This record gives sequence, C-alpha cells and structure tokens, in this order.
Amino acid sequence: MRYLEDFSEGQSFELGEETIREGEIIEFARRFDAQPFHVDPQAAKSSIYGGLIASGWHTASLFMGMLVRGLLHDVASMGAGGIDEMRWLKPVRPDDTLRGRLTVLGQRPSTKHPDRGLINCVGELFNQNGDRVLLIRWSAMIARRPGGVTVTPAGAPAKERT
Amino acid sequence: MRYLEDFSEGQSFELGEETIREGEIIEFARRFDAQPFHVDPQAAKSSIYGGLIASGWHTASLFMGMLVRGLLHDVASMGAGGIDEMRWLKPVRPDDTLRGRLTVLGQRPSTKHPDRGLINCVGELFNQNGDRVLLIRWSAMIARRPGGVTVTPAGAPAKERT
Repeated sequence: MRYLEDFSEGQSFELGEETIREGEIIEFARRFDAQPFHVDPQAAKSSIYGGLIASGWHTASLFMGMLVRGLLHDVASMGAGGIDEMRWLKPVRPDDTLRGRLTVLGQRPSTKHPDRGLINCVGELFNQNGDRVLLIRWSAMIARRPGGVTVTPAGAPAKERT
Repeated sequence: MRYLEDFSEGQSFELGEETIREGEIIEFARRFDAQPFHVDPQAAKSSIYGGLIASGWHTASLFMGMLVRGLLHDVASMGAGGIDEMRWLKPVRPDDTLRGRLTVLGQRPSTKHPDRGLINCVGELFNQNGDRVLLIRWSAMIARRPGGVTVTPAGAPAKERT
C-alpha cells in the first residue's frame, strides 16, 4: 500500500488504456448528458463536431476508472475536495483508445489533520494518435503512513517512529 | 429554443431535483471509481466518511443530467471546453435528494467564431437539508440566434437583421 510519503514531485504513472465504444457513449449520455451530439449519431453529423462524441463527464469518469485500476487500488486514498481545472482538449469519438497518465506536481501534509496530506497532480488522457484529449488538475487526499517516517519542519527526514 | 442572446448576468435557473439511491452509487463507482468508500458500504463505515458516499464524478454527472433536462434541452448548446473549478463541498449519501441550480455570471460572443459565444456560469447542487454539495464553474458554448438581434460595440441592441 502506498501512502502520502511515497509520492513526490515529478513522479509519473502510466495508468493503462481503454477503448471506448459508440454504445457506451450513448448509454452514458442518455443517463447524464443527453445532448444530440452525445446521443444521436445522425444529429451529431450536422453538429460542429461532425459526428458522435463522448460527454466530457464520461471522458473524465473513464480517466478516474483508469486511475483507480492503475494506481489508487494500492494507495491509501481518502478522496478529494474537488477539481482545480479540467480541459476537454479534443473530442473523444467511438473506438478511440485512450491512455491515461498521472503526474505528481507536489506533496504536502495537511495542516489540519495529522493523519493525511495532499498530492497535487495532473491527470491526462491521450488518444491513439497521441493527441491529448483530457487534462485534469486537482489535489488528492492520501493517508500518511501509520507510524512511518516523520519529516522535520526543515524538510529533512527524521528517524522512524515505532 | 434559447440562444446566446437569451442569457445575461444574474439569471438563475432551477433545474429540478433527483434522489440518489445506494444501488446507483455502487453501480456507477464499480464502473468508474471503485474506491472502498464508493462501492463497499461496510468498508465505507470505517472510512473518514462514516458510510457510503457517491463518487464526485457521479455527483457531477447527476448535475449535468439535471442541467440538460431542466434547461439545455431547449438551448442551442454547442458543448464546453472544460471546467474552471469544481468543488465537492459535502458528501452525497444514499437517499439524498439533490436540487440543481444554474446561475449566469456573464455572456460574451466568441471572437473567433461569429456563430457562437460563451456564457460563464455556476452550477450548484443542494441536498434535502439545504447544504450545498457541489459547485461547478465553467463557460458553456452556445450558438447565437441566426439572423437575430445584433449588438453594437457600445452594447446597445441594434435593429433586427432580416
């Protein structure tokens, strides 16, 4: 299990890949984002997108799925308070294969809760052409290692607590 | 059908309400965010949340569903480029009834595309106790009215084009 102390600036994690199908795009959008360019292939053709595209909420949810399966399943994750920025940079279309990546920008212990901290990170999805289709910036809340290494105010590692 | 010109600063739209059930929370999270506090009621009890909570991506998607059914179904919506900020302010739990609201902060024509513009807006969800559980800020892309009212640089409405 990875804890807050196992993350540091500059780390990058490949999260695997997933191919998205027309049926799933339409199914998700019928429930959550039933705009014509997400649910109706014919209407989508005459939209500015020229064809059916995935809801941005679907794309973001696919990224989250990859993040959990590719990394968080083995992290003492405690959730998150929100998203600082999300960009849907290119349309996601049926049969696109999306590849996920997480990059750690920084890490800090919580000032309020001694048992946890935040990692500031960027999530990205790329399609099969290498185009970046999604960017998400946020801070993930992660538990500190119980009885683990403590860090002095100056930032130097202190001895193990036992 | 509403176009860009039909939106202005300070407008507020009530988007209806929806009750979220444990089964849906678990189903969504199994597919997209299978962290223990989203998929396992027993494990969730011993988490910092004290019980099962909805994935933030599920909550955001529920908001989007309300926005489409409550407003966008009758708007010349062209999608969005992303989200400027999203906050999951309180946990969303099984049987919570969520009420949605959209507030328009401003409106501007696109400088690149004469056929469209952006409305800057804030979306909110409130639970049955009146607690705000979700806040989303973003700019929605909306078509301008075809052959509609033009606005002079000074902001005064010009005569109808025909």
